[in-house]
Amino acid sequence: MNTRQLQHLLEGVRDREIPVDQALQSLRDLPFEDLGFAKVDHHRAVRHGMPEVILGQGKEPGQVAEIASAVLAKSSNLLVTRASAEMADRVKAIAPEAEHFPASRVVRVWRDRSIIGKGKIAALCAGTSDIPVLEEARLTAETMGNEVEAISDVGVAGIHRLLDQRHRLRDARVAIVCAGMEGALPSVVGGLVSCPVIAVPTSVGYGASFNGLAALLGMLNSCASNVTVVNIDNGFGAGYVASLINRV
Amino acid sequence: MNTRQLQHLLEGVRDREIPVDQALQSLRDLPFEDLGFAKVDHHRAVRHGMPEVILGQGKEPGQVAEIASAVLAKSSNLLVTRASAEMADRVKAIAPEAEHFPASRVVRVWRDRSIIGKGKIAALCAGTSDIPVLEEARLTAETMGNEVEAISDVGVAGIHRLLDQRHRLRDARVAIVCAGMEGALPSVVGGLVSCPVIAVPTSVGYGASFNGLAALLGMLNSCASNVTVVNIDNGFGAGYVASLINRV
Amino acid sequence: MNTRQLQHLLEGVRDREIPVDQALQSLRDLPFEDLGFAKVDHHRAVRHGMPEVILGQGKEPGQVAEIASAVLAKSSNLLVTRASAEMADRVKAIAPEAEHFPASRVVRVWRDRSIIGKGKIAALCAGTSDIPVLEEARLTAETMGNEVEAISDVGVAGIHRLLDQRHRLRDARVAIVCAGMEGALPSVVGGLVSCPVIAVPTSVGYGASFNGLAALLGMLNSCASNVTVVNIDNGFGAGYVASLINRV
Amino acid sequence: MNTRQLQHLLEGVRDREIPVDQALQSLRDLPFEDLGFAKVDHHRAVRHGMPEVILGQGKEPGQVAEIASAVLAKSSNLLVTRASAEMADRVKAIAPEAEHFPASRVVRVWRDRSIIGKGKIAALCAGTSDIPVLEEARLTAETMGNEVEAISDVGVAGIHRLLDQRHRLRDARVAIVCAGMEGALPSVVGGLVSCPVIAVPTSVGYGASFNGLAALLGMLNSCASNVTVVNIDNGFGAGYVASLINRV
Amino acid sequence: MNTRQLQHLLEGVRDREIPVDQALQSLRDLPFEDLGFAKVDHHRAVRHGMPEVILGQGKEPGQVAEIASAVLAKSSNLLVTRASAEMADRVKAIAPEAEHFPASRVVRVWRDRSIIGKGKIAALCAGTSDIPVLEEARLTAETMGNEVEAISDVGVAGIHRLLDQRHRLRDARVAIVCAGMEGALPSVVGGLVSCPVIAVPTSVGYGASFNGLAALLGMLNSCASNVTVVNIDNGFGAGYVASLINRV
Amino acid sequence: MNTRQLQHLLEGVRDREIPVDQALQSLRDLPFEDLGFAKVDHHRAVRHGMPEVILGQGKEPGQVAEIASAVLAKSSNLLVTRASAEMADRVKAIAPEAEHFPASRVVRVWRDRSIIGKGKIAALCAGTSDIPVLEEARLTAETMGNEVEAISDVGVAGIHRLLDQRHRLRDARVAIVCAGMEGALPSVVGGLVSCPVIAVPTSVGYGASFNGLAALLGMLNSCASNVTVVNIDNGFGAGYVASLINRV
Amino acid sequence: MNTRQLQHLLEGVRDREIPVDQALQSLRDLPFEDLGFAKVDHHRAVRHGMPEVILGQGKEPGQVAEIASAVLAKSSNLLVTRASAEMADRVKAIAPEAEHFPASRVVRVWRDRSIIGKGKIAALCAGTSDIPVLEEARLTAETMGNEVEAISDVGVAGIHRLLDQRHRLRDARVAIVCAGMEGALPSVVGGLVSCPVIAVPTSVGYGASFNGLAALLGMLNSCASNVTVVNIDNGFGAGYVASLINRV
Amino acid sequence: MNTRQLQHLLEGVRDREIPVDQALQSLRDLPFEDLGFAKVDHHRAVRHGMPEVILGQGKEPGQVAEIASAVLAKSSNLLVTRASAEMADRVKAIAPEAEHFPASRVVRVWRDRSIIGKGKIAALCAGTSDIPVLEEARLTAETMGNEVEAISDVGVAGIHRLLDQRHRLRDARVAIVCAGMEGALPSVVGGLVSCPVIAVPTSVGYGASFNGLAALLGMLNSCASNVTVVNIDNGFGAGYVASLINRV
Repeated sequence: MNTRQLQHLLEGVRDREIPVDQALQSLRDLPFEDLGFAKVDHHRAVRHGMPEVILGQGKEPGQVAEIASAVLAKSSNLLVTRASAEMADRVKAIAPEAEHFPASRVVRVWRDRSIIGKGKIAALCAGTSDIPVLEEARLTAETMGNEVEAISDVGVAGIHRLLDQRHRLRDARVAIVCAGMEGALPSVVGGLVSCPVIAVPTSVGYGASFNGLAALLGMLNSCASNVTVVNIDNGFGAGYVASLINRV
Repeated sequence: MNTRQLQHLLEGVRDREIPVDQALQSLRDLPFEDLGFAKVDHHRAVRHGMPEVILGQGKEPGQVAEIASAVLAKSSNLLVTRASAEMADRVKAIAPEAEHFPASRVVRVWRDRSIIGKGKIAALCAGTSDIPVLEEARLTAETMGNEVEAISDVGVAGIHRLLDQRHRLRDARVAIVCAGMEGALPSVVGGLVSCPVIAVPTSVGYGASFNGLAALLGMLNSCASNVTVVNIDNGFGAGYVASLINRV
Repeated sequence: MNTRQLQHLLEGVRDREIPVDQALQSLRDLPFEDLGFAKVDHHRAVRHGMPEVILGQGKEPGQVAEIASAVLAKSSNLLVTRASAEMADRVKAIAPEAEHFPASRVVRVWRDRSIIGKGKIAALCAGTSDIPVLEEARLTAETMGNEVEAISDVGVAGIHRLLDQRHRLRDARVAIVCAGMEGALPSVVGGLVSCPVIAVPTSVGYGASFNGLAALLGMLNSCASNVTVVNIDNGFGAGYVASLINRV
Repeated sequence: MNTRQLQHLLEGVRDREIPVDQALQSLRDLPFEDLGFAKVDHHRAVRHGMPEVILGQGKEPGQVAEIASAVLAKSSNLLVTRASAEMADRVKAIAPEAEHFPASRVVRVWRDRSIIGKGKIAALCAGTSDIPVLEEARLTAETMGNEVEAISDVGVAGIHRLLDQRHRLRDARVAIVCAGMEGALPSVVGGLVSCPVIAVPTSVGYGASFNGLAALLGMLNSCASNVTVVNIDNGFGAGYVASLINRV
Repeated sequence: MNTRQLQHLLEGVRDREIPVDQALQSLRDLPFEDLGFAKVDHHRAVRHGMPEVILGQGKEPGQVAEIASAVLAKSSNLLVTRASAEMADRVKAIAPEAEHFPASRVVRVWRDRSIIGKGKIAALCAGTSDIPVLEEARLTAETMGNEVEAISDVGVAGIHRLLDQRHRLRDARVAIVCAGMEGALPSVVGGLVSCPVIAVPTSVGYGASFNGLAALLGMLNSCASNVTVVNIDNGFGAGYVASLINRV
Repeated sequence: MNTRQLQHLLEGVRDREIPVDQALQSLRDLPFEDLGFAKVDHHRAVRHGMPEVILGQGKEPGQVAEIASAVLAKSSNLLVTRASAEMADRVKAIAPEAEHFPASRVVRVWRDRSIIGKGKIAALCAGTSDIPVLEEARLTAETMGNEVEAISDVGVAGIHRLLDQRHRLRDARVAIVCAGMEGALPSVVGGLVSCPVIAVPTSVGYGASFNGLAALLGMLNSCASNVTVVNIDNGFGAGYVASLINRV
Repeated sequence: MNTRQLQHLLEGVRDREIPVDQALQSLRDLPFEDLGFAKVDHHRAVRHGMPEVILGQGKEPGQVAEIASAVLAKSSNLLVTRASAEMADRVKAIAPEAEHFPASRVVRVWRDRSIIGKGKIAALCAGTSDIPVLEEARLTAETMGNEVEAISDVGVAGIHRLLDQRHRLRDARVAIVCAGMEGALPSVVGGLVSCPVIAVPTSVGYGASFNGLAALLGMLNSCASNVTVVNIDNGFGAGYVASLINRV
Repeated sequence: MNTRQLQHLLEGVRDREIPVDQALQSLRDLPFEDLGFAKVDHHRAVRHGMPEVILGQGKEPGQVAEIASAVLAKSSNLLVTRASAEMADRVKAIAPEAEHFPASRVVRVWRDRSIIGKGKIAALCAGTSDIPVLEEARLTAETMGNEVEAISDVGVAGIHRLLDQRHRLRDARVAIVCAGMEGALPSVVGGLVSCPVIAVPTSVGYGASFNGLAALLGMLNSCASNVTVVNIDNGFGAGYVASLINRV
């Protein structure tokens, strides 16, 4: 598409419909829409069905609303992560169908629900307190066009609970595993599946969990070879990468 | 295959060729060959072309030689990671075609060189000191049947060197990025490609690099959404996961 | 007893058999001689069959030999932990039947092999590199008069290997679980058994294992309620406490 | 039992009562339902008299109330740890006899007060600020059917206070020792008793106590061999393991 | 001057105008009044156009107001950093033209706007959340008499955004680069410019950013040789040093 | 004195004025006043003029009031550290002359102002934000009967300010030095005086000060041989030890 | 220039000299080849007189020799840092006038000794053990064409030693200050001079110096506003940046 | 003395025996002998009997020999800490009576053995592995003219061992307490004595002792108010400060 715009512009120049100066101006002044660099972002969105994602944290509700408007002008879907209740209200004022998930602090506009992923993404979490992080991962992957099989409360201290759900892992092309405390679940899941596992340490725990550090270190040292790790509580990142893998 | 063995056993029982007691014994005493659990490992090797990998660290050269013999009895390929020179000699005594890569401490027997991966894996590293980790990743991915495009010395302080190699990243279905010191390369590469990026922090650096901690933290906090991370100096893990992604 | 002594003293004062000054002195200067503190250690050894244990680390071989002689003069058994080869030789010169376990750096004289423990102690480890720590725990528990069921190489990334050994855990009155890297095994074992689990983090691993810190934090944050933890690589402590529990 | 089921199945195949296909299906699809994994928890509760424990932290008051109802339908006792005042109110609405301990944030329903433990559990703490953690341990152990001897304010800087209470430690089959700041009390107690000591670091302190890290490290490095450690402020875990030890 | 005073004193002694005792006293009791130490600060302010800066943090609004009055009595400009809203109000009561920048918590009185710096200072930040730190740096440098070119939202994951702004970096005599998360921007900028780069890690991020530690370590390990680092969120320090460099 | 009480009791027994049973009771039931152990505390108070100190942190205002009443019944002076405003009010209700120092959170009753120390204690702090910690140290030392020379705002970046005050350090028998941020002041003071220096790291700072850790490490590594260190913000401990030194 | 090229291309299209397809290709495929990124490094060397620097660490002696040959073919000067003795020998074989500084592990070829810096660089260190780091800084700055005033053994615990050298600091346009242990020297120097100070923490110390961490944190928290920091033991970086500042 | 020299100089000027220029020169060129600053060091040595101490670590044996010669030219005693065997040999070549203590790495020349301290210094350590640190402290204090009562192997897990030695603590004017592992001994000793306690954490231990960090944190958080702390393994510092306290 963008290539087409560029081609169109050049043809206009060739056909003398667009003066060189004006073309030059277009090419220089619209850096991110017209020049190669900015296309990347756009192309990626088009190819991967990834709506523009707004990181709410550290932004003003007004800023979020403004960006959301701009995004929704050209994109069907929208995701705001780490959003406050006020941000949710502001987005709802723009797009009434916006959903707000307070536990995971996600706001979503999900108009285009076509499935783009080639297979299923399994998303697991160890305890009920990890559910918000799981939810952020699930919402991200869903909105990027994936079918997500979410399985919660399958912590390793009751290994049978996980094993009982094992059949739901079979078809997954990629697995997301969220866990706080000792963060052992990704290692066990890694041994049960043969697909890539994205481990998400959560800040669930107390004392020597050091806000997720224990889980993070555990996951980085996983004895399962198919495990990679994202930042503490980064459900979004896990959902994003899982979506990319599910498209390759 | 395993299902077939099981079916065969049951048919033997049905046809009274195999007494119940003996069948029972088979089902209970041959845990990893006959029961579902142990098949997983085997199946994974078959499906993914992953030869048995031996972690040399913490093993005696004799033990490594013994396991290597067992592996090579049923597998074409073999990989020993974190191998000492003595381990390399012992493996060469068994399989003279074994290659030894002293910098990355890898020993490899690579008889079956068929390509199984669906696309190309790009493997980059920031500085020349990171090359051993890159090499471990490359050897792993190669031996698992992938074409690997290796690019070294493209650290972020000379961003043009990376940008000059950008065309080599285009077709990659997954990228491995190794970096020590500040570990910034995965973030930049993450912005240039739209495929998953597996970041490998290396222990290259001194002082406040704290043996790779600085690079590890940097990668976990990457502002690029398509980055996941493995343990410090874990080139093997990165090569392994990249191979899995390249087969999905 | 103490009350009686005190009463006796006061009566002596009342009856003018003991001058006030002398009574005063007694009350101030004999605080602990009468209370038998210094015998506690001795009593404990007698009750629990625990021979004097010598921590080799930081001692001269000659010192170790001297203490070993003294111990063996009044005790059948002897354990030296973190012992060098030279220490082993020195102990063998004194007690030719002494065994030396180089991997776990234990030297043992095991003359009295009577079983004192009420049940069985299960001792597991995750990988083959954890075996030396397991061995230190096993030797300690054995020498303290316990039957030990040792199970190795049952890491959580191949959960079936552990589950296949589950029947060997059933009768254990206490379990010792050693693991390096992510240290997840105690949580899984903790869910499979209903007895106390003593978790021993090991320094096995590299990079972000930070010499056992990752495993230690993981174990402290175990989601299994029946897990307590000892220091990194402290197989001795685990064997010791398991022995105490097995006698209660 | 399980072996019997398996034998039964094979005999059915032999006797042609069960077709091979159906037997194959049974063997592959019912991996854990037949092996009783999921009942382990239930059995453990029955055997150990441990009421279901609800971890309040990270749950909604409504969720806690719902689980509490379910638990009390089949169990006499109930323990909610890290409970908010609102959770306490919700539980009281269901079970008016519920007690709320605001300092330790415990809610308890204690209908069945039978003693199951074989001996006495001693529970000590160093300073008055450690009392809430001690209380959580004591309530857990009590509700699990143990007699608990609680001793507070016996910090090591006034060693006589502890020595004066020494007679109360004599009969203990297991000791729980809570301490913040330098966390030295378990080492001293460990030397005075010959039973296992469970050390609980508390987050009491300031500055370089780093929220209990100093006490945790101190306890892990205890020079007393009979000390194991649980997470910072984990009174519940200490009470739980002490109860298990007191039943062996 | 000082030498002259000393000579004068000695001549007085020689000429018997000053008794030995009195000279002795002078030499011993006036160590620093004569050597101008206390004037250094003043001189520096005069030479460098740096107004007195008040660190608001840890001060009472009344104290800030009092110091501000004293400063403004002899200086045209004033900067209060880490100022509360109440401090801003108190300063405005004294100097109505005072500006308050709530995001960066700076209060400024900027009467003397003469340019003293010899060239331009470039000030960049990676993300929009880093803008407050950038602002503190910019306000400091501006108030010290520098022209500042501020460029925001040029994070390394979209390297083209930075490259598009490259022309604005060309003339800079010194660059300030603020970044949170992985803190990679200074390395990339360091490679694009040939002037000194002052890196400011910010506390922007979550999880394993550990409040700016990840960015700090990254910057300290920068592979670009022209990078030095200041404390986390220390925009003021960066602006101050950049101003000094711009005057040399 | 206590010895005298004991002697008095024994003489009463000798003279049959006090029955043995009653004496026994006194000796057993008043453990800390009558038996050797508790005398230590009492003796120390008497010898050192140290009033009972109550650590407010972690106590209820009512508890503080109760202890304060008990202390004031037998002691002229009282010190409550880390006290809340409510605690201050409760103590004032008991002892109207009580002073409250909100910045340092100290409450003091100072009836007996006799000087016991043999010399002067110098107490310095680096910045104005360190004054509360200095105040806690000063109040402690004063109340323990010392003359304190307090010097504030003599940070090392303006070394002349400290040198100008050097004459006030000359007579000090011991110096207390409080500093946050880089914590360098004790090293400089340590070089200027020949008496012991007690360094108090404060939590003043931000970013990489890590709540006083930077200052703490700095002081522990002081290149001045006469420096010892107490916990972060522990002004009380510094004042206490300085008082002890001033009495030796 | 770039604009001109672009204009030229567009005019070619307009004039039908360049087909649209070819123009399109040019615009998409030549992003960086036309912009001269790869020459930046070269330009910098030319402008700043900075010889190519080789980081010896992690390289083979042969590699160092090869790079050294290449550098010396086009550059008068050469600096190898963190060089082994063997590297020194290899460089001397190529350039006999090469100097080797074993303490600082620097190898230097210094043919062009012209002074390029505008003023003097002061380089100080606290203790004699810090001298190797100071030397690395000094050699770097010298080789880059600066006059360096080196002052050693002026640690803060003997503040007079520093003050006595103060006159040598007066004319410095920039100061490098190396210190281990508590790392306090940069703060004191920062207060004495009005130029920028580059602080270099060294790994000199033991125990709680944690290999330079204490000094690093101290310097980052410096209360002097004119201090920036480089990595632990990074004398090269300090010398490099100081040289850049001295040329602005 | 120095004052006398100064007076002498001034009288010479007054009496015209010394020209003003020459006097001026003397006052400016002999900074450390004539001006107040340098006197401090000298005076301290004289007053406290502290011989010059040479820190061996990081020095060449030749350098140590040279400094030792210089020191012994004007001082009876000499102490070299962290000395290698070669340094010991070099010092013995100069002063044959020099003693070498290999365990504590101290070399001492102890000609002047007069007692200067007013009382006794008690020096304790917890385990036999802590003895080298204790020895460094003892040798330092002895050489500075103190009577030292050394007590070893009184760790807190056998509290009676310490209590049995309590009478030896009674007369101490200051106590030094060395301990590794959990570092609890200073707290217990602090409660037994009423004098200042200097705590020395040692690096004795393994695993979570983190080379003495556990002991260091424990001591900083001591619940005994009379405890201050020095760096890990800093026996010298403890002996030095104890000596200063013993002279006040």
